[in-house]
Amino acid sequence: MEDEMQARIRASFERQGLMRHLGARIVHIAPGCVRIVLPSRAEVTQQHGYVHAGATSAIADSAGGYAAYTLFPQDTSVLTVEYKINLLAPAVGDHLEAVGTVLKAGRTLTVCRLEVFGVQDGHRTLVAAGQQTLICVAERPEQPRERR
Amino acid sequence: MEDEMQARIRASFERQGLMRHLGARIVHIAPGCVRIVLPSRAEVTQQHGYVHAGATSAIADSAGGYAAYTLFPQDTSVLTVEYKINLLAPAVGDHLEAVGTVLKAGRTLTVCRLEVFGVQDGHRTLVAAGQQTLICVAERPEQPRERR
Amino acid sequence: MEDEMQARIRASFERQGLMRHLGARIVHIAPGCVRIVLPSRAEVTQQHGYVHAGATSAIADSAGGYAAYTLFPQDTSVLTVEYKINLLAPAVGDHLEAVGTVLKAGRTLTVCRLEVFGVQDGHRTLVAAGQQTLICVAERPEQPRERR
Amino acid sequence: MEDEMQARIRASFERQGLMRHLGARIVHIAPGCVRIVLPSRAEVTQQHGYVHAGATSAIADSAGGYAAYTLFPQDTSVLTVEYKINLLAPAVGDHLEAVGTVLKAGRTLTVCRLEVFGVQDGHRTLVAAGQQTLICVAERPEQPRERR
Repeated sequence: MEDEMQARIRASFERQGLMRHLGARIVHIAPGCVRIVLPSRAEVTQQHGYVHAGATSAIADSAGGYAAYTLFPQDTSVLTVEYKINLLAPAVGDHLEAVGTVLKAGRTLTVCRLEVFGVQDGHRTLVAAGQQTLICVAERPEQPRERR
Repeated sequence: MEDEMQARIRASFERQGLMRHLGARIVHIAPGCVRIVLPSRAEVTQQHGYVHAGATSAIADSAGGYAAYTLFPQDTSVLTVEYKINLLAPAVGDHLEAVGTVLKAGRTLTVCRLEVFGVQDGHRTLVAAGQQTLICVAERPEQPRERR
Repeated sequence: MEDEMQARIRASFERQGLMRHLGARIVHIAPGCVRIVLPSRAEVTQQHGYVHAGATSAIADSAGGYAAYTLFPQDTSVLTVEYKINLLAPAVGDHLEAVGTVLKAGRTLTVCRLEVFGVQDGHRTLVAAGQQTLICVAERPEQPRERR
Repeated sequence: MEDEMQARIRASFERQGLMRHLGARIVHIAPGCVRIVLPSRAEVTQQHGYVHAGATSAIADSAGGYAAYTLFPQDTSVLTVEYKINLLAPAVGDHLEAVGTVLKAGRTLTVCRLEVFGVQDGHRTLVAAGQQTLICVAERPEQPRERR
């Protein structure tokens, strides 16, 4: 069961072209909690050389989405309804680690806490914190749409 | 003056490694309003083939940030304090267009409205809407940090 | 039909003990848009004598909730999922006017734009702006619970 | 010092007409954490007899504001920049308890986590969760404005 859930989430994550393009990896999957790591590199920066709020948010959004998904029934899918994120400190470090944690699981809506840490030489700093609402929808039967 | 502001924003945008990596382009700069376009392609998708909320948010965040920046004095810089975004519809289309518009300009804090449209064959659909808080800080004298 | 909707909303508003206690009145009901007025008085202030963010938010939340409700089918009810609000300027004036406007109506979730104006001698200033997510639920058959 | 801070916060809370009008009491003040209690009664309800999201938010906003204020220097004042709150469950119980906790303290901006619990016979349920941004401003020398 647990293995099936892990496999389902890893397969979904593999299909996220953005996560691969950014170089993000899913490093922890547990019921109600998922962690995603993003190595720092020039491709994810903003104008001052820090990690861009958009990249920081992207891994936070995916971490929260999959954290919710771990608690959903089979044959369902997860969509982000909305999220809010505060950028608390410059996003620096060897890599960022986003942690999504389910705060309230519901039949239709689930709410997650989002945290992003900058990690440098094993030292962690909270660089962003947020809150996210997700919806559980019936799995769409069709295959993922092909894109150019 | 206007030209100087446009040049300042284009130079800053050029330094955003993430925008280049995603393939985003700044297409409109006016006082209090900036538009950024993101062509749809596999590198920016989520698991269903739509544009990932993280990519949608990234261009919305940059559009709002630069919209605020158009109204800031010289020798200052802009940082995102926080934003909130609702994903209203699947982000599909030939490209997305993010529009950042200043709602309230302040000496320290500025608030922007964020909108993202999916554009297909000239038809526009609102796919995301949000609100963002930005802070005006004294320009950091040092050069952008080099990253691996 | 329109009259039935207006009556349904006014009856619901009458049951909101908080709105009556604050002195708020519903002044406009149209499909997808509702306006609520709150006269300034000592009972709604914060420590500097301005209207408290909590009172400002309360009328914004009710305005958005009823704006969504105007578009819901009969035998349903509305609940606020979440909202975000920026306090843009000191909330002063003879009265505040909150405007809730539907941005995206959905079968399950509806998103509203929230605006609150301070009105003094007919002059309006935007004092707060936000965004809200609401959910349409089957009408609960039971009567409103009695409270002490 | 600690006593001075407690006295400063209690005096400010006393000036919040809305808190008194709602019947809210400040029950805990510690560095970076403040708790406010709101007894359930008809004056704070929405249309179903639960506590109105506006009242729930009002005590959450005040709890977070004062939590930030505990860490501010003397001769400064606190203003809410914005907040976001999810209503997670019907706000029921003998009373609500709002907890504001500083997540990140800054010289200009401070970010708080907001939680509201419904308490019935000693049993606590999380009914709302949010995040708030506050700004530290120089104390306004004038007295609180008088209102009708």
